[in-house]
Amino acid sequence: MSEFRQNMATKDWVIIATERAKRPHDYIEPQRHLTTETRTFYDPTCPFCPGSEELELEIERLPAAGPWQTRVVSNKFPALSIEGEVTRTFDGVHRCIPGVGYHEIVVEHPRHNTTLALMTPTEIEYVLQTFYSRGWNILRDARIEQIIYFKNHREKAGASLKHPHSQIVALPVVPNDIRHRIEETQRYFDDNGECVYCVMMRDELDKGVRLVSVSDHFVAFVLYAAPSPFHMWIVPRQHRVSLLFAQKDELADLAQILHDVLRRLYLGLRDPSYNLVIRTAPAKEISKDYLHWYVAIVPRLGEAAGFELGSGMFINPSLPEESAAFLREVKI
Amino acid sequence: MSEFRQNMATKDWVIIATERAKRPHDYIEPQRHLTTETRTFYDPTCPFCPGSEELELEIERLPAAGPWQTRVVSNKFPALSIEGEVTRTFDGVHRCIPGVGYHEIVVEHPRHNTTLALMTPTEIEYVLQTFYSRGWNILRDARIEQIIYFKNHREKAGASLKHPHSQIVALPVVPNDIRHRIEETQRYFDDNGECVYCVMMRDELDKGVRLVSVSDHFVAFVLYAAPSPFHMWIVPRQHRVSLLFAQKDELADLAQILHDVLRRLYLGLRDPSYNLVIRTAPAKEISKDYLHWYVAIVPRLGEAAGFELGSGMFINPSLPEESAAFLREVKI
Repeated sequence: MSEFRQNMATKDWVIIATERAKRPHDYIEPQRHLTTETRTFYDPTCPFCPGSEELELEIERLPAAGPWQTRVVSNKFPALSIEGEVTRTFDGVHRCIPGVGYHEIVVEHPRHNTTLALMTPTEIEYVLQTFYSRGWNILRDARIEQIIYFKNHREKAGASLKHPHSQIVALPVVPNDIRHRIEETQRYFDDNGECVYCVMMRDELDKGVRLVSVSDHFVAFVLYAAPSPFHMWIVPRQHRVSLLFAQKDELADLAQILHDVLRRLYLGLRDPSYNLVIRTAPAKEISKDYLHWYVAIVPRLGEAAGFELGSGMFINPSLPEESAAFLREVKI
Repeated sequence: MSEFRQNMATKDWVIIATERAKRPHDYIEPQRHLTTETRTFYDPTCPFCPGSEELELEIERLPAAGPWQTRVVSNKFPALSIEGEVTRTFDGVHRCIPGVGYHEIVVEHPRHNTTLALMTPTEIEYVLQTFYSRGWNILRDARIEQIIYFKNHREKAGASLKHPHSQIVALPVVPNDIRHRIEETQRYFDDNGECVYCVMMRDELDKGVRLVSVSDHFVAFVLYAAPSPFHMWIVPRQHRVSLLFAQKDELADLAQILHDVLRRLYLGLRDPSYNLVIRTAPAKEISKDYLHWYVAIVPRLGEAAGFELGSGMFINPSLPEESAAFLREVKI
């Protein structure tokens, strides 16, 4: 029989639909080409490949000297503009703000035909350091309320450019959805005197059935109430509200576990499309009690349709415990 | 310059991204085949076509006598089961409920190769009457807290079966997302003493720029803060909390305006994929002040990716006023 499961942090319900159950192997698409098979090492028409970089758009690079390993560039077609004031207009029915904010691209690697799963932990660490460094820089801008760090891997996850890259969007508002999540974690804290993410993470370590990988500083697991197949969180063991408070050795360790988890996904499910999101506190949220940053990895193996749109609930035809066991067994 | 716009009912912000703006015509896919071109009038392998109906799954049909026009059948692979008790289990971290509920299919028409946009208003009215009748019947079951009525049209909207159909899912919980929406409308009512949907609808009638169609009892418009291109609401002029309180002449009128709006979409944008959702009050929500039912029509002309996942906000590259003007001009 199917089951409604609730995520205690977000309070979202999902339907784990065992009647229509798919097994982990059903998500492998044998005819799907791997990232390395569909691209060349270097593409002369790619604006992110070495040699054709659009230098005027560059914001920063790592390492600072010698050939670059990662670069941050302004998005050539940004959704938001850096210039402008955050003025609210409200006529009683419509509220609007000029499209002020940051929209940046993190070029993750010089090579055109690679992806995080194929990079070394050291190479992944450069990407994380770039997020960290840009995050601190952007936060000096008092107009900014929320930074979203994310990655779209492959077509089904919304990637329009092939060269491995992530994006940083900085907003002058805290999105409604993030406000609601904060309210829920605050309520949990007030009821129980503990951070709900700390509780969930400890419980996953205890139970073990949904674990995918653990490291010194992080715990990776498939969510008990996973909205979609293989939906994972990588939660820092140390209670910190933001990526920007992570220590250097923690970032190095995150690179290590990301390498591990993304390789399991790449090798186990044959390089599926996925979104990666770093969920971190709003810029000016100073409470240290109930916020806890983490990384979400969401393979795009299902489709949101009318039911999801109308209810905000998801139907997941896979069993989280079975997905986690499958990923644990992948030989990386 | 881009613009953040806020939906006053949901309080969700969207980015209307004019820098990457697409014009209405850009959403027409000339190579896309129309529904009538890709299917035959009758498909002998289709379980919904007359002659091969799975009669044992039938719940009701309209008209009651003579050849059927619409039929309701149990989903053969339901996400939820009718049998069972709604018992909550909570171990301090995980909350779950057995997968109890209803999952039904409304076969909208005997013909295999048609769709709402091509049906007559009378034929569409049968579908609405079926929703109405099933809704009242399901509500007699005290376990049910929320009914979701929805339709997935074509592949990109998640339709797996081609025969024109919609779905009804009845849940033993009120989804979190719906709770949040109710809280916002309640807050608006407490602040302003009015239903926010009534205010929005009157404003759209006044301004006119986002109107798509109006009828005696309904107003159809592209949302000011449309999360995606051509995202429309059809709002009843009469303040009622639920579809189930609509009068017979209102349902007939809704069929009329749905016919109008869906034909504009079909002819104007060449039969795009869309989801249709009826948003209606939870089963046991009796407040008449701040809830207001409506129909949402969401063409699937964009992709939700990492940014949307991480922020709950959407980037819409089209201008709602321009989309509405385009649809108004379609010759139906």
